[in-house]
Amino acid sequence: MKRPLIVVNFKAYSEVCGERGIQLARDCKTVSEETGVEIIACPQMVDLANTIATTGCTAWSQSVDDVTPGGRTGHTTVEAVAGAGASGTLINHSECRKLLFDMEDLVVRCRDNRITTCVCTNNLGVSKAAASLGPDYVAIEPPELIGGDVSVTSADPGIVSKTVDELKNIDGNVSVLCGAGVKNSKDISKAVELGAEGVLLASGVVKSKDPKAVLRELTSAF
Amino acid sequence: MKRPLIVVNFKAYSEVCGERGIQLARDCKTVSEETGVEIIACPQMVDLANTIATTGCTAWSQSVDDVTPGGRTGHTTVEAVAGAGASGTLINHSECRKLLFDMEDLVVRCRDNRITTCVCTNNLGVSKAAASLGPDYVAIEPPELIGGDVSVTSADPGIVSKTVDELKNIDGNVSVLCGAGVKNSKDISKAVELGAEGVLLASGVVKSKDPKAVLRELTSAF
Amino acid sequence: MKRPLIVVNFKAYSEVCGERGIQLARDCKTVSEETGVEIIACPQMVDLANTIATTGCTAWSQSVDDVTPGGRTGHTTVEAVAGAGASGTLINHSECRKLLFDMEDLVVRCRDNRITTCVCTNNLGVSKAAASLGPDYVAIEPPELIGGDVSVTSADPGIVSKTVDELKNIDGNVSVLCGAGVKNSKDISKAVELGAEGVLLASGVVKSKDPKAVLRELTSAF
Amino acid sequence: MKRPLIVVNFKAYSEVCGERGIQLARDCKTVSEETGVEIIACPQMVDLANTIATTGCTAWSQSVDDVTPGGRTGHTTVEAVAGAGASGTLINHSECRKLLFDMEDLVVRCRDNRITTCVCTNNLGVSKAAASLGPDYVAIEPPELIGGDVSVTSADPGIVSKTVDELKNIDGNVSVLCGAGVKNSKDISKAVELGAEGVLLASGVVKSKDPKAVLRELTSAF
Repeated sequence: MKRPLIVVNFKAYSEVCGERGIQLARDCKTVSEETGVEIIACPQMVDLANTIATTGCTAWSQSVDDVTPGGRTGHTTVEAVAGAGASGTLINHSECRKLLFDMEDLVVRCRDNRITTCVCTNNLGVSKAAASLGPDYVAIEPPELIGGDVSVTSADPGIVSKTVDELKNIDGNVSVLCGAGVKNSKDISKAVELGAEGVLLASGVVKSKDPKAVLRELTSAF
Repeated sequence: MKRPLIVVNFKAYSEVCGERGIQLARDCKTVSEETGVEIIACPQMVDLANTIATTGCTAWSQSVDDVTPGGRTGHTTVEAVAGAGASGTLINHSECRKLLFDMEDLVVRCRDNRITTCVCTNNLGVSKAAASLGPDYVAIEPPELIGGDVSVTSADPGIVSKTVDELKNIDGNVSVLCGAGVKNSKDISKAVELGAEGVLLASGVVKSKDPKAVLRELTSAF
Repeated sequence: MKRPLIVVNFKAYSEVCGERGIQLARDCKTVSEETGVEIIACPQMVDLANTIATTGCTAWSQSVDDVTPGGRTGHTTVEAVAGAGASGTLINHSECRKLLFDMEDLVVRCRDNRITTCVCTNNLGVSKAAASLGPDYVAIEPPELIGGDVSVTSADPGIVSKTVDELKNIDGNVSVLCGAGVKNSKDISKAVELGAEGVLLASGVVKSKDPKAVLRELTSAF
Repeated sequence: MKRPLIVVNFKAYSEVCGERGIQLARDCKTVSEETGVEIIACPQMVDLANTIATTGCTAWSQSVDDVTPGGRTGHTTVEAVAGAGASGTLINHSECRKLLFDMEDLVVRCRDNRITTCVCTNNLGVSKAAASLGPDYVAIEPPELIGGDVSVTSADPGIVSKTVDELKNIDGNVSVLCGAGVKNSKDISKAVELGAEGVLLASGVVKSKDPKAVLRELTSAF
């Protein structure tokens, strides 16, 4: 079992664009050092290298494209993600859906480049397919709960525990995260109780007036 | 007429990923200051903010997505491009094609955010449609010549002059750039002679062993 | 000026899937012959050839892909549209958005194959770009009114008249259609008064219990 | 074990557009009846309903979109595929790639509509993910061999046998087909020997001057 973790997805929220995103990344790093809980920042795409260079935070890319380095205007390669200093990447979020062919190739290419992979999924069927690709993490997030007020751990605890159970049989090395509506340490405690090894969250932290306080409260679950 | 310019598109070339991209951006800035010729760097997406913060170069984004700030994992908003410190963006490169609906919206949204727009096109018909959207620049690049050894100004000078002529009638405020195979000051001189106000280039600079020398040679055309 | 026309888009509505779509196409043909008003049926993609073969109706494809004949599984070529007996095609509906590069190429390829082109647009800016490609028709449909109860001719008459005015200056051979919420002959009369040469409609006919009666009423506008 | 089958994908080849496609479908039906070997025709999208109505052949759609019936211009629903009389559909060909989210949903929706599903894949990793979705068939086709002269069964027999072995462990109800370069009964015999329950082919039949003779020769493998 991996060390539990909290992944903070900055998405394209205006609250964490540019300089304000750097502040949030700094908060992630500070609280992670204070508490010993691993907190991963996922800054906006164009801010990725700068956020890492400025804050020294642990960061993942929000996405990556299945293209090799070369003449590929506007695309982000696995190599560019690594070059920016990120240690991992989300793949296939509900808001950034991927072709299966590309997902399979990306998981392989990330592994070759020592980039941690977290494939985001929407239901049990997709989670099983994702797990069969052998990523480091599968993050289950029912899309209808994303950005909402009710945590997946309350609204649909069965989806988390079933995903944990089924994925064990497919690949024991794949860890399950859960997300959608996760807002506080109770939600995380419940997630861990259901077998998840961490959570993926966004608006609960990003839109908070005091993200550092929210992050501290979240880490108290571990 | 705008000031002539040279746009250097870093694409996803491994030669200018991460730290080496910063060096190229620094070279762009140095030669621009030495010569008075405007040189725009288009760093890789995840390096954009860092390249600008580190070097103070003038930079454009290689691409931008037609989404508003919010829950849009993996997407780059116009606001994020501006927040990263870029002054402009390419839109619709042959390697990063856009929906017409999105292109129209992006040109408007960039204008509202004071982001310079350069719509890349592949032929005269697309250039006319692009110009009717009112971007700052239309950059004509026949795809079959991109990354090759023969400059568009030699291989197909008519496409440049015709584009210049036709676009004047559509919107006199749209400047024409040209690209594909552009490698030296002769190519640029020819481009200017054909009515273009600058060039878009990539491999000729990016893959050079001495980009600064290449950039200096290029600026001698003006 | 072309002969006024009514284009009936079957979309993917279950009411006109398979056999029931053939009945609607038959109704289109019957009312067209009775009244002398040109009525074009746009059957569902997989029903296109069968609807034409069975009813002899005048039909357009709902869409077409910018690919040449060959190893292109799942794609619909201009040649296949022609081979199915259709005389035209919609291109770039709000529900089926196209890359500008593909749209330009499709208009040329359709012209070469004598397939009438109707580019659907969402606003004035996109309509101008579309017109510059030289299609036979531009059909302006504000997306927020599509499928609704209020006709574009009541909700936003200015968008129709402005489109007609501006497109004249771009290409006098391009005819303007309008759509979104169009339900009855009053809406069509108003569209014609605003300068449109016909209408594009869907739910008003497709979901009617008596499409033939609706079609007859619609043609009374001419 | 299901009955062995030969799936003939018409793709977008000009040789089988319109009327000539109907002739090939008729040949498929004739040879199937003569020999007792199941032969499935996959006509071009716009010809699907007409080919079935005219010939009574057993047919699958070349593709289907993950949308529900309604206002979805240019899209093909599972319901439309069923309404056209097809008994199945290909999903996710190399030439028509799908999002994983859509593939999962499509397999479920096809099952609900009694439409046989054949997910096409390019390698072992994707095949495993595809099998975990529970389709009726997984058809493995290395893209570099598609349309070529060397059969996958000669060029890479291991990919077929490994796929058969691995997929048994994932879902014993999923049958494996193979394709790419398959041209004659020897290729099919080898495929069956490797554990495949049938083949997917295209150019070898479609581009033949005597498709009926080719089909007869192919069936001799069973």
